[in-house]
Amino acid sequence: MRVVLLAGGVGGAKMADGLAATVGPDLTVIVNTGDDLELHGLSIWPDHDTVAYTLAGLDDEVRGWGLRGESWTVMDRLEALGEVEWFRLGDRDLATHLWRTDRLRAGYRPTEVALELASVMGVTSRILPMADEPVRTEVRTGDGWLEFQEYFVHRHQEPTVHEVRFRGADDARATPEVLAAIAAAEAIVIAPSNPIVSIDPILAVPGLRAALQEARQRGVPIAAVSGIIGGKALKGPADRMLASLGEVASAVGVAARYTGLITHFVMDRIDAAMAPSVESLGIETLVTDTIMTDDAARARLAGEVLRFAAAVSAPE
Amino acid sequence: MRVVLLAGGVGGAKMADGLAATVGPDLTVIVNTGDDLELHGLSIWPDHDTVAYTLAGLDDEVRGWGLRGESWTVMDRLEALGEVEWFRLGDRDLATHLWRTDRLRAGYRPTEVALELASVMGVTSRILPMADEPVRTEVRTGDGWLEFQEYFVHRHQEPTVHEVRFRGADDARATPEVLAAIAAAEAIVIAPSNPIVSIDPILAVPGLRAALQEARQRGVPIAAVSGIIGGKALKGPADRMLASLGEVASAVGVAARYTGLITHFVMDRIDAAMAPSVESLGIETLVTDTIMTDDAARARLAGEVLRFAAAVSAPE
Repeated sequence: MRVVLLAGGVGGAKMADGLAATVGPDLTVIVNTGDDLELHGLSIWPDHDTVAYTLAGLDDEVRGWGLRGESWTVMDRLEALGEVEWFRLGDRDLATHLWRTDRLRAGYRPTEVALELASVMGVTSRILPMADEPVRTEVRTGDGWLEFQEYFVHRHQEPTVHEVRFRGADDARATPEVLAAIAAAEAIVIAPSNPIVSIDPILAVPGLRAALQEARQRGVPIAAVSGIIGGKALKGPADRMLASLGEVASAVGVAARYTGLITHFVMDRIDAAMAPSVESLGIETLVTDTIMTDDAARARLAGEVLRFAAAVSAPE
Repeated sequence: MRVVLLAGGVGGAKMADGLAATVGPDLTVIVNTGDDLELHGLSIWPDHDTVAYTLAGLDDEVRGWGLRGESWTVMDRLEALGEVEWFRLGDRDLATHLWRTDRLRAGYRPTEVALELASVMGVTSRILPMADEPVRTEVRTGDGWLEFQEYFVHRHQEPTVHEVRFRGADDARATPEVLAAIAAAEAIVIAPSNPIVSIDPILAVPGLRAALQEARQRGVPIAAVSGIIGGKALKGPADRMLASLGEVASAVGVAARYTGLITHFVMDRIDAAMAPSVESLGIETLVTDTIMTDDAARARLAGEVLRFAAAVSAPE
């Protein structure tokens, strides 16, 4: 079964891992690039790398991000040189950025670089940046517009977010690889990532949402998994963001965001009472355990999502 | 006493260290940039860094280059990604390159970046790149023209060198900082570095040799220390290079190269018999122990060189 997953950071990586365990090379992950940044002249792709390291089995599950067995020699030495960075790069992680930046400077497209990186890391699934052009997520707070990582890492997601924009999205376009993956997909999954700053940037890439809608019209199921459980984000500020943007911080709120796009919705047992509300939006709903506590839970949830989407397909 | 030192790699760093122990902040080191290279998009300045690390007391005296307590995590991981490099950068060293490249990209001149780096490393002497424009040393071998590091590191200095050139030198010019240091110098020292690929590139920067000659005419002593002892280079391929370029691989051969520029020459006791030959070139000659085996030997030699140059100054 050819599966396409739209994914952001950690939630996306866990979902990707579960799906890879189920369909392996038939999985294509389209990752958010809105969080990407340049640091020390290096191209840093946080969401991409979280997915790539997880699929390569190199992720640090205890810390929840970055590479296992990481060390911090370069950053420590940079600090000794007076360079205090709030975005710290591990030594092993740094090798990825050096490797990638070299290739980007040589003129390869981000998509080509991502495909080669997955290959040298032994990842059999495909990981595609949502676009080759730079798109940068920015949030408006009481202190004005902030770059995403400034808000997310430096300010610990503390400022209230009043507005979100994806700078550069208008000039981006869906890549041939992304369009081909969607065209060939038999199921499309939206990961339980932050709908506002992980999934929305992907959908903002011109051509991408239309391709998804075309797939849906062909009868391809599009299933979203809620990252809001019991009104709270499992990780990150999605719940507070939904609230401060005037939306509803609940599984129904997430489903509502995807109305017109998804055919299927997967929510946690905790939110079972909301299932009728989601169904009333014309969306098939599955209630199950959605917290991916370990590898087995990831694979089980992925399998359930795929069976649910395949069994009850909803062509228009 | 305001001292200017022309220096290449390890020999230059040891001489700089001895002089810094004697005159401290009154020392300005003009370093060869012909060995510089770009790697992974980073600006690597091997000769500069050898001098800077040594003056900062951070050099690895056992290995003879790089930083003490170095680790190789980033390079090992790059190799795991299939990137096999013959020019390996240590983790701590890498921090220097990231720090520097960032500033160069921000538009600072190499001279400004070098001055700031020395300052954050706690080095009180000034270390100046010979020029702000890129100059690249290349050697012609049986395999054609090779970039310096390709010859030096990758091919272990094995190919015979038939010719040397300094690409970009014609478009470079002596910096205001270099010219000011020479104009203010009370003594100028040429380190026992490789005369062909460490000192010659410095002298090839338009305006630099003329500034030295002007200083000499003002009565400023210019003293060179021989890096060839008993016909052999203490380190590196200088002896073989002199021979294959049709020159004489001896202290006299080194002195002859600097004829018309230097007023003083310092050679090892082993070569004492050659002193009259050097003196016959119109150069004051000091015979002493020149091998800088430890900090004390560095400081002693530096002191001797300065006393020698100051005592017998030779205005024209």
